[in-house]
Amino acid sequence: MATESNIDRESSTLLPVADDPLCKEASLTSLDSWITPTDRYYVRNHFSHVPALDLSSWRLEVDGLVDQPISLAFDDVARLPGRELAFTMECAGNSRSYVTPPAEGLAFRHGAVSTASWKGVSLRAVLEMAGVQETATSVVFEGADRGEEEEDGVAFELSYRRSLPLAKALDDDTLLAFEMNGEPITTNHGFPLRLIVPSWYGMASVKWLTRVHLTDQVLDGFFQQRRYVMINEGREDSLEREPVTTVLVKSLIASPRHGEVIQYPSFTIRGFAWSGEGQVARVEVSTDGGRTWADSMLLGEPTPHAWREWELAWQVPSSGHYLLMSRATDSAGNVQPGSIAWNFRGYANNSIHTIAVEAPAGKPIPS
Amino acid sequence: MATESNIDRESSTLLPVADDPLCKEASLTSLDSWITPTDRYYVRNHFSHVPALDLSSWRLEVDGLVDQPISLAFDDVARLPGRELAFTMECAGNSRSYVTPPAEGLAFRHGAVSTASWKGVSLRAVLEMAGVQETATSVVFEGADRGEEEEDGVAFELSYRRSLPLAKALDDDTLLAFEMNGEPITTNHGFPLRLIVPSWYGMASVKWLTRVHLTDQVLDGFFQQRRYVMINEGREDSLEREPVTTVLVKSLIASPRHGEVIQYPSFTIRGFAWSGEGQVARVEVSTDGGRTWADSMLLGEPTPHAWREWELAWQVPSSGHYLLMSRATDSAGNVQPGSIAWNFRGYANNSIHTIAVEAPAGKPIPS
Repeated sequence: MATESNIDRESSTLLPVADDPLCKEASLTSLDSWITPTDRYYVRNHFSHVPALDLSSWRLEVDGLVDQPISLAFDDVARLPGRELAFTMECAGNSRSYVTPPAEGLAFRHGAVSTASWKGVSLRAVLEMAGVQETATSVVFEGADRGEEEEDGVAFELSYRRSLPLAKALDDDTLLAFEMNGEPITTNHGFPLRLIVPSWYGMASVKWLTRVHLTDQVLDGFFQQRRYVMINEGREDSLEREPVTTVLVKSLIASPRHGEVIQYPSFTIRGFAWSGEGQVARVEVSTDGGRTWADSMLLGEPTPHAWREWELAWQVPSSGHYLLMSRATDSAGNVQPGSIAWNFRGYANNSIHTIAVEAPAGKPIPS
Repeated sequence: MATESNIDRESSTLLPVADDPLCKEASLTSLDSWITPTDRYYVRNHFSHVPALDLSSWRLEVDGLVDQPISLAFDDVARLPGRELAFTMECAGNSRSYVTPPAEGLAFRHGAVSTASWKGVSLRAVLEMAGVQETATSVVFEGADRGEEEEDGVAFELSYRRSLPLAKALDDDTLLAFEMNGEPITTNHGFPLRLIVPSWYGMASVKWLTRVHLTDQVLDGFFQQRRYVMINEGREDSLEREPVTTVLVKSLIASPRHGEVIQYPSFTIRGFAWSGEGQVARVEVSTDGGRTWADSMLLGEPTPHAWREWELAWQVPSSGHYLLMSRATDSAGNVQPGSIAWNFRGYANNSIHTIAVEAPAGKPIPS
């Protein structure tokens, strides 16, 4: 039975999504801390081979439209002024399994979202070392991960490459990170250096970073033009393929889990909410399938790039079956929709999270 | 990737749904004939053990509120006046995989629907042999299939038992069938005798039938009160658990398949439509995600209990991605909805079938 209720309820480890490339996601029931322990942080690789880089030989090349191309050793980066921030990273394909009709791509359920504390240096500091020329408009980032892709039956080899507009690259919070939750970044998360792009979906945070290239061209790359773009319904000749960028406002119910037989008569519903476009302003909860909504309590303090925990004490009125929903609103006024406009690869599904739970009645079983 | 596009496209055999109990469904792409060949007919068993009955020792007991209980050998049934009809049987759990949030039960996609020609005798003839007493209000049918179920952690043994209102049992088209598509019924489909209840979901058509019991009581059975009832969202104390009975109007697109790269610039969209509440009056097709609809052509002649094939010649306007939908209306005026009201076990999902297809552009692949 392919429902969420089949998730191994006891496991604190990650749930498998794919073996090649290796992808794993969190069980929603393990989202019980504001910072996600690294061993519960979702993994989204793009190729079979995971780079195992050697710190002593690793270099970061900065070139293209710069005054002076530079090649930095790890220590050259690490000795720049440090910056640390907590960032809730969500995979653009998170919640894809719940897109209707089914979308192309890895079948992530709701667990490809995690929060870590990332420490490194502002990318800006490195760009200023090289000197950005006035004609540069965007920055291309290349990881050491390389492998095969296929399209229309044609296989080809490529590296993972993504671009950012120059203004976003120069944001003080766009980091070259070398620590994740107080430790060196692990191999699966991009050792030794990972680009961190707060407020954007995870594909922008390039792992195993080896090259930063300033350009005035639009990157015509597979992961820029063929993936992480909104392919909507319609005639191709009228399509503008909008790139996937800023994380849409979203909330998830972490407890109870879908299908859970709940404690009766009171239960605390809790979860997380986040947005790339501002702070979480409000999380409403419905316990009657969306007919009525109540404001949950937002816990802790707002943090610029990280999710906010919320909870609602629910007095379960009676035994029965209940549909619980959460709906977040951000400070820019964006509200989670009931359903998203379908897109071919099922990106950015921030539709309202709905789960069903049962408050048991304890009746005799008919024969 | 758990999408329809991963269905083995070449296979003409059934797709596995569960091993215990054995359940299989058709690939939509194999729905290419009005009568479903028996080896492509969906299988829905309820227990691990499939009865292998011996024709010489098999008996049908008719008892309860009758003038004279009778026990019939196979030949006693087979020599009654014959009746044959084509019936599109749909599992109540068909399309359950596309219910949101995920529903409890076996994860049938859209293929638990098949049409066979069933030959047997009217149940009415057998009931009249026994003489139905005036106080009888319903008829309980018992199959030879027996096994374990579990509820609230308690395991118990039971037979498959279902009841019908007397009026439905006396309908001339309610059959005791012993032939399926011109051959003796196969073991998995209920050899030697299967109750056939046209216009109702498949759970009513009891396999391996051994007993027919007339009663004035409501059957308090597991498969009558705990399964095949609509458990809707809400307080249990206010719930009337409506039984699942008549098949709702529905259509499916059999070709193209979801995710198919289609022939361009013209493609014939085809599928089937059916309803337990009347004839199929109309099947509309949308090729633009539901903004506009065109009437398809209904093929062949209407047949009381069987589906109707339909097709639409589509001139694909351009390369691009398209959302195709089909929406049937029956002679009683029922129209397929965009989505169903959620129910805990995901029964009777007759929401509009939507698939995505691509008309290729043939562009170069970016590196």
